[in-house]
Amino acid sequence: MELLSAMHLDELSLRFSQINMYPLFDIAHYIISVLALKEQAGTADVAQRSPLACWVSAMIYCFGGAMLSSLLLAEPLIAPLSNNTNIFLASFIWYIVFYCPGDLAYKCFTFQPLRLVLAGMKEVTRTWKVVGGVTQGQKYYKDGWLAIIAVGWSRGAGGGLLANFEQLVRGIWKPETNELLKMTYATKVTLIGSVLFTFQQRGSLPLAKHHFMLIYSVFLVVLKVRMMIGGPSMSPFSAFETLLFSSLFGWQKQASEKGTSALTAGKMSPTSSSAASANDVKESEERCPDPTLPDTNANILETERKKSSISEEEDKNDNIVSKKKD
Amino acid sequence: MELLSAMHLDELSLRFSQINMYPLFDIAHYIISVLALKEQAGTADVAQRSPLACWVSAMIYCFGGAMLSSLLLAEPLIAPLSNNTNIFLASFIWYIVFYCPGDLAYKCFTFQPLRLVLAGMKEVTRTWKVVGGVTQGQKYYKDGWLAIIAVGWSRGAGGGLLANFEQLVRGIWKPETNELLKMTYATKVTLIGSVLFTFQQRGSLPLAKHHFMLIYSVFLVVLKVRMMIGGPSMSPFSAFETLLFSSLFGWQKQASEKGTSALTAGKMSPTSSSAASANDVKESEERCPDPTLPDTNANILETERKKSSISEEEDKNDNIVSKKKD
Amino acid sequence: MELLSAMHLDELSLRFSQINMYPLFDIAHYIISVLALKEQAGTADVAQRSPLACWVSAMIYCFGGAMLSSLLLAEPLIAPLSNNTNIFLASFIWYIVFYCPGDLAYKCFTFQPLRLVLAGMKEVTRTWKVVGGVTQGQKYYKDGWLAIIAVGWSRGAGGGLLANFEQLVRGIWKPETNELLKMTYATKVTLIGSVLFTFQQRGSLPLAKHHFMLIYSVFLVVLKVRMMIGGPSMSPFSAFETLLFSSLFGWQKQASEKGTSALTAGKMSPTSSSAASANDVKESEERCPDPTLPDTNANILETERKKSSISEEEDKNDNIVSKKKD
Repeated sequence: MELLSAMHLDELSLRFSQINMYPLFDIAHYIISVLALKEQAGTADVAQRSPLACWVSAMIYCFGGAMLSSLLLAEPLIAPLSNNTNIFLASFIWYIVFYCPGDLAYKCFTFQPLRLVLAGMKEVTRTWKVVGGVTQGQKYYKDGWLAIIAVGWSRGAGGGLLANFEQLVRGIWKPETNELLKMTYATKVTLIGSVLFTFQQRGSLPLAKHHFMLIYSVFLVVLKVRMMIGGPSMSPFSAFETLLFSSLFGWQKQASEKGTSALTAGKMSPTSSSAASANDVKESEERCPDPTLPDTNANILETERKKSSISEEEDKNDNIVSKKKD
Repeated sequence: MELLSAMHLDELSLRFSQINMYPLFDIAHYIISVLALKEQAGTADVAQRSPLACWVSAMIYCFGGAMLSSLLLAEPLIAPLSNNTNIFLASFIWYIVFYCPGDLAYKCFTFQPLRLVLAGMKEVTRTWKVVGGVTQGQKYYKDGWLAIIAVGWSRGAGGGLLANFEQLVRGIWKPETNELLKMTYATKVTLIGSVLFTFQQRGSLPLAKHHFMLIYSVFLVVLKVRMMIGGPSMSPFSAFETLLFSSLFGWQKQASEKGTSALTAGKMSPTSSSAASANDVKESEERCPDPTLPDTNANILETERKKSSISEEEDKNDNIVSKKKD
Repeated sequence: MELLSAMHLDELSLRFSQINMYPLFDIAHYIISVLALKEQAGTADVAQRSPLACWVSAMIYCFGGAMLSSLLLAEPLIAPLSNNTNIFLASFIWYIVFYCPGDLAYKCFTFQPLRLVLAGMKEVTRTWKVVGGVTQGQKYYKDGWLAIIAVGWSRGAGGGLLANFEQLVRGIWKPETNELLKMTYATKVTLIGSVLFTFQQRGSLPLAKHHFMLIYSVFLVVLKVRMMIGGPSMSPFSAFETLLFSSLFGWQKQASEKGTSALTAGKMSPTSSSAASANDVKESEERCPDPTLPDTNANILETERKKSSISEEEDKNDNIVSKKKD
């Protein structure tokens, strides 16, 4: 803190923490969220078949965090709908992004420099949401810091955590994956932020809240911009994750492999070893799809999934053949 | 209003608005709801395999609206279960419709003139539910009229909106469709009613509530009876919908098609044009299936869906072949 | 009651009803729940791919009842998370069961005599949960005993009732089955307990609460231990169920079959008769899989399901062939 005051950052961070998200930052959040929805496969078709389903999906993208944290805290799920101004802003942006003639609005918003600015501003709203969620959770559970973390996380990354049900609104169902099984960068960084802000609130971190909000926001914006320019291959967490994963969940395997290598030699299936290596190279990925970037880990997992579905298919075909023989 | 008083309708509508739904109208609602459940494919099997699952499904059909609006407003989900009398009535009707020897109760209730009367009475309960939902929503959100509309709508059309999860109780999962992607007549008319009653409550409509309840109920009953006699081809909304759809979500396409026809010529895929034409002929359909009626729009969509699943299948088979070659 | 006092059981049952579940019985519940999760197919893979998803699944297994009853009563869903001590106990057990080197903890807990003791203790927590749920429900709904039963049931058997969504966390989706369609022994016995405790609370049973808690617990433990030793073929309910089922839901069929046998002769499909016989031999099954035991009913249903999926597959293949011919 002395360092920060020495750098005259004290007043800056205090002013920063008093910025009102409405309207500019909220608008940036709505634009980036609706763009992410539009870039999902099949959404253009849904927008033409059922504008209402498309609108509901867009609202889940924009207000999913508030909905999920409301659900967890047994507050009205439709509370976000009662804020007319925000809903109108989000609906207006949804309308021009999806139905503007010649896709002008979409083309305008996806102009790279503008998108960078908007994405940066959206990340700032994430800080505000996590702080809001942690504060909201603290009102309910003074000491239940696990519950507080959960509320902060769901408030900041709700759209992602609700992805399965948001897709269901659009007629898509992908049970084989979800944000818990394969966390995106946004979900991870929100979880880390929620943990840190919860400890800050409990006085476990030697940092004032406004300083921490500034630092976390700068961290989010810098990472986001770097990822959008340099691609997800520059994931900031992969080293940390590999370390955490191997220290918590990987050492047993290594230990048992060493200890019982003589016993289990030859029993190890190639699948499990490839799964382990896939975990080792596990990298964070962004929700916003970027088809030009190599996504090795996803490819590996995808290939494995395909293999298994293929073998299921083969089993089925075998069944059919054997039944036909009968 | 002068016109109505001139026609001595003032007292009539006031008395009408004071009718108690319990027990007669509620019974009609339960009968029509349970009949709709029984006419779903595979329900007879479920009724034999697991009467409990069948009963839960029936309760969602009968009380889905109350459940969904409770969920949205964070009121206890099982509140409907606490009303013993209504639950017993609904359970008794469920029992005789599903388990009466020789299907006597079902045959009796589906006798066309009786069913017409019951369906008309059920529509009257819809008015009461929408009004109840709008009043309930207003208690929570004085100015959030979007939230109020949502509560009124979910209260009046909850069974339909919960259809995916009701089917899940019976072991059926159809993610590719839901009430938002393809709204039925009942869902549409409830949405319109909820919008109108919300504006009436806010004083934006020059009509007293009891007059409006009478008019809306008569409108619902007449439409319902006409549809049951004449079939869904006489949809009252198709013209209005086409107009609304093309003015809000279709003009851009036409504009861009005209403006850029030279540029995009030859790029337009046959699929998207057929989807557009499918939307143009979109018609409202009733939940109660009527196998004798042609359902062209559903057929078109079904055919498209089949095509896509077939091509997925072909992809899979190609994978298998290529893998076997390896 | 005179009999019980004569047997000096009065004080025993009073003391029994004052046992604190924390920590020993709770620990037994967590161990048995996490073991049940670990024995689900594919969980080892999930534990390696995403420890977070695995942890969430484990928490649903351990605290699903509290979550489901909270959802039904519109209390905060994450309330169980706010109890730090219990969460830590459950998480610690989850950690050692899944990640202990050489699977030592798992092997230790599944040592048959220890598992018998733990399973017995877990059944005691079921009594406490059902009583807790019934008491909680009574606070909300004084006379709505159907709602009270539902809360007691969901509190005692929440993990099972939430199974579909717990599997979704692990990327598995089995819509064709759920606890309502095919109730396990645990779900059935909890439902019976919830019904009995609700009537006891309302004063309809001539038995004090602590006596009833002792009797129900002994009943649960004895049955559970007998089933673990003797296998599910010794289901205690099958006779009672067959009687109840045939008296409530089967007599109509018999009646109509007798009455209209001349009319319907030859119309009865072989599928429906086999389905009926499958119902007649319906037996309760335990969630904990026991691969050594014959599970005839499940086999029959499984075979039927396979047949239908095979025929679907054939339909698809036919479509492909016919399409290719075009």
